[in-house]
Amino acid sequence: MQNITVGDYLLTRLQQVGIAHLFGVPGDYNLQFLDHVIASEDIRWMGSSNELNAAYAADGYARCRGAAALLTTFGVGELSALNGVAGSYAEYLPVIHIVGAPSSAAQAEKLLLHHTLGDGDFTHFVRVAREVTVAQAILSRENAAAEIDRLLITALREHRPVYLFLPTDVAEAEIAPPEGSLSYRPESLQSSLDAFTAAAEALLAKAKSVSLLADFLADRVGLRDALKQWVTDVPLPFTTMLMGKSVLPEQQKGFVGTYAGAASAGDTQPIIEQCDVIITVGAVWTDTITAGFTQQIDSLRNIDVGLYVSRIGSQQFTQLAMKDAVAALHRLTKRYGRDWHNAGAQPPALVDCADGALTQNGFWHAMQDFLRPGDIVLADQGTTAFGAAALRLPDNVTFLCQPLWGSIGFTLPAAWGAQIACPERRVILLSGDGSAQLTIQELGSMLRDGLKPVIFVLNNEGYTVERAIHGERQRYNDIAAWNWTQLPQAFSAQCQAQSWRVTETAQLQEVMKVIEQTSRLSLVEVMLPQLDVPPLLKAVTTALHERNAS
Amino acid sequence: MQNITVGDYLLTRLQQVGIAHLFGVPGDYNLQFLDHVIASEDIRWMGSSNELNAAYAADGYARCRGAAALLTTFGVGELSALNGVAGSYAEYLPVIHIVGAPSSAAQAEKLLLHHTLGDGDFTHFVRVAREVTVAQAILSRENAAAEIDRLLITALREHRPVYLFLPTDVAEAEIAPPEGSLSYRPESLQSSLDAFTAAAEALLAKAKSVSLLADFLADRVGLRDALKQWVTDVPLPFTTMLMGKSVLPEQQKGFVGTYAGAASAGDTQPIIEQCDVIITVGAVWTDTITAGFTQQIDSLRNIDVGLYVSRIGSQQFTQLAMKDAVAALHRLTKRYGRDWHNAGAQPPALVDCADGALTQNGFWHAMQDFLRPGDIVLADQGTTAFGAAALRLPDNVTFLCQPLWGSIGFTLPAAWGAQIACPERRVILLSGDGSAQLTIQELGSMLRDGLKPVIFVLNNEGYTVERAIHGERQRYNDIAAWNWTQLPQAFSAQCQAQSWRVTETAQLQEVMKVIEQTSRLSLVEVMLPQLDVPPLLKAVTTALHERNAS
Repeated sequence: MQNITVGDYLLTRLQQVGIAHLFGVPGDYNLQFLDHVIASEDIRWMGSSNELNAAYAADGYARCRGAAALLTTFGVGELSALNGVAGSYAEYLPVIHIVGAPSSAAQAEKLLLHHTLGDGDFTHFVRVAREVTVAQAILSRENAAAEIDRLLITALREHRPVYLFLPTDVAEAEIAPPEGSLSYRPESLQSSLDAFTAAAEALLAKAKSVSLLADFLADRVGLRDALKQWVTDVPLPFTTMLMGKSVLPEQQKGFVGTYAGAASAGDTQPIIEQCDVIITVGAVWTDTITAGFTQQIDSLRNIDVGLYVSRIGSQQFTQLAMKDAVAALHRLTKRYGRDWHNAGAQPPALVDCADGALTQNGFWHAMQDFLRPGDIVLADQGTTAFGAAALRLPDNVTFLCQPLWGSIGFTLPAAWGAQIACPERRVILLSGDGSAQLTIQELGSMLRDGLKPVIFVLNNEGYTVERAIHGERQRYNDIAAWNWTQLPQAFSAQCQAQSWRVTETAQLQEVMKVIEQTSRLSLVEVMLPQLDVPPLLKAVTTALHERNAS
Repeated sequence: MQNITVGDYLLTRLQQVGIAHLFGVPGDYNLQFLDHVIASEDIRWMGSSNELNAAYAADGYARCRGAAALLTTFGVGELSALNGVAGSYAEYLPVIHIVGAPSSAAQAEKLLLHHTLGDGDFTHFVRVAREVTVAQAILSRENAAAEIDRLLITALREHRPVYLFLPTDVAEAEIAPPEGSLSYRPESLQSSLDAFTAAAEALLAKAKSVSLLADFLADRVGLRDALKQWVTDVPLPFTTMLMGKSVLPEQQKGFVGTYAGAASAGDTQPIIEQCDVIITVGAVWTDTITAGFTQQIDSLRNIDVGLYVSRIGSQQFTQLAMKDAVAALHRLTKRYGRDWHNAGAQPPALVDCADGALTQNGFWHAMQDFLRPGDIVLADQGTTAFGAAALRLPDNVTFLCQPLWGSIGFTLPAAWGAQIACPERRVILLSGDGSAQLTIQELGSMLRDGLKPVIFVLNNEGYTVERAIHGERQRYNDIAAWNWTQLPQAFSAQCQAQSWRVTETAQLQEVMKVIEQTSRLSLVEVMLPQLDVPPLLKAVTTALHERNAS
């Protein structure tokens, strides 16, 4: 077989693990590699306005397709992307971060090149990457094949970003083409699975009621269909937290609303917590989604399934893949759950609202009606994510948010990435005005690419999520006042977009009807009272405030 | 004396070292500290659209005022700012980076808070900061006073950023107010200065001709006036490189144009290099400003003055402050230089250009006429910086660029920072279209603050600086096509800006006349041929291309 370049080897491997696009920004240490990307039939280049936005877009793409790739240049590019990569690390997204670096010879000579700190040390940024990626490799011609394979497998196994440092000469070096295909399938140790099944059976056999809470890691592992089948087969009350919202079918009987510890609406918390056994799958109990760790899950009655480690009471089961543990629980609950029921399980209704001037409640009522099966909905980590938590999602909706890392501005580029990942699905972006300002230029990329997401900018004149925490009327929570509806026109020379500014509920509903009947990028500026917040946010921020003050 | 909070202590110290503004983005780990900022009479809060832009603005501010401060929140905020802080490190700007962090109690409990990686480890980002700052401190009530003082002094001494990690509870903790004022004045070891002076005298006493190259570090130390006096007193041919442009008075007799190694225009290189003695002050020989290390400075004939270390031939003089070394050389050259001359020294003229459609040459001719004494000119690291290198700056112009770190998009927020630092001076921003896209939202901050910079966006449809290096017609060097002239309107609800799109030289000249007679933020979209590059860029990129390929 003929040799190929390291760059082409990498592109082949990316394609094999399901990646079809590469997000990033060109720089003079990655241009030669980019020639191979452009020439590739498998990987399409998606140029971004800046590197942070590219990292966010890759993250959104990975949330929809399982993995993503990001290309930046040495120093300036990779550091700009860092916050986005860190978010992928915190929230378990396998993003392959490729950094085009100066040539091996220039590094060996310790030359004072541009994009360095001017000290001849080319290792600063690999050390930075160690803090926010699960594996790193300095590629050479000799190690390239082995290291690329190792890093991609690691990313898939750990569901976390990896860092590939690719000097210009190494990208062009020729090596043998890859053997076979590359993929990762988690496998369990049979003895661990057996022990887990036995321990779970001991609990479930005598349970009169069992509840299920599945969260984001179940989605990362691709268990959406398996979970749907489970709650179809077995009458369990079930829930998710905000971070994993949409991993379970919310239109199905048994859904009790989004769980948020003591800040849960209606009866969600007692229904879930008071069952004899509480099964939790893929949950990480972080502050904002639990209203400051207010969950009350009795560990003695809890079967907790993690990515590779599960726990029942004080017992721990390692080398146990989540999918195997879930399949075992599915079988057991089917056997023992004939008398269980989820008859009373209902998600809390949205808070009532009056007509007239728009409020948070009015907006979320209208949004509930606007959603359609199959939509991809992104909500930024401000009032929007907390408001969206109360939505009851139609079938096959994918909901994306970032409540652990919580980097505002994330969703706008992530919506671009999601739309690239799923061109046939409708993408709905919900962002506050403060959030959208951080990353607004990626609107230009969406327009350039002819995409047609529906964007709602909730304009409440600043960082309302911060006002809810502290400094309600302080100037630092104000932002520059923009003409939001003019932005699509400004960001595209051939603008095909439509935009509106709405102040009343009826207006919003009218605009939503128009949007449903057209196929253009749509931006709706939704005017909301400055201090109006969704009920969940109020409860959560009160808890966070106490935490910050302690 | 009554105790004050750690936050107020820090603000007092910032004010004492000459900082009057704090750039940044609020986040819920810095809001309480921000209350103190808002209440402060000394430090004014400058809220930015995002953290990278805030870091760039702080850098621009520090270039004009000597030091700057930046406030971000833990994790998301600080990492977004990292590329900007790294630029300040590479290019020697003392930026005080304050990171609002979770409370000490929450950290001790290893809580899974938002903005963390979800692993209970709060030290990841301090380790990141170690790579791009010269000192770091985790503040506590006990160490706050000592550590704040240590870090500020270190930043001033090293001219580099420092990292202050400020937990919410520590910001509010009360300590004794600062004693006295805080300042740093570099001092030399007398014996080192004496030895340096003797060695310099040995060279200068027998020299028939001496040239001077002063660069950016001389500006960082505040030697602009001293250098001007020197070249007024002594007839030396003198030059700067792009990185330090404007540190020497370019209208004065003796200025021979901007030095760029073998890529220097006209006779600049031989005039400087062929003197008997070449004095270099505050220069760092990096690739882009030397056309790939093509400088030919004979070390045996070179007196090189660094921040704290100077060299003459093979001798090294430590603990020697730049200002003292410069003063010594000034005295010596005045004594021995009575027969020296700079009669033939002239900067190369700008390349001629025709009327009609705009070209790079036409643009720079017009810009040369547009400049006025006292302007602050920023040029982004693309075609603009290389084109601007050929300008002959009027008196007291401050020229800002970033040729070592070379992060495109830097200058737009830096222009905002520069205008905040010097409200009475005219700020002229020169940016390519590709560069401006990275950080465009800070236009909104300029408009919100009622600032009136003059912005030229050189629209050549993409990354022309990259095309010059590689991929002349490749799709990755294209960008989204924006309606540049609509942006000021879109970014401000009460827009007071004016904007134009010009395609011909005469049009540009007309617009410049209008701008001179008005006082509003002005944005001029300058249409330029896609592959047209300034002569210097052509020479430099050829050298870089060879370097990348080697």
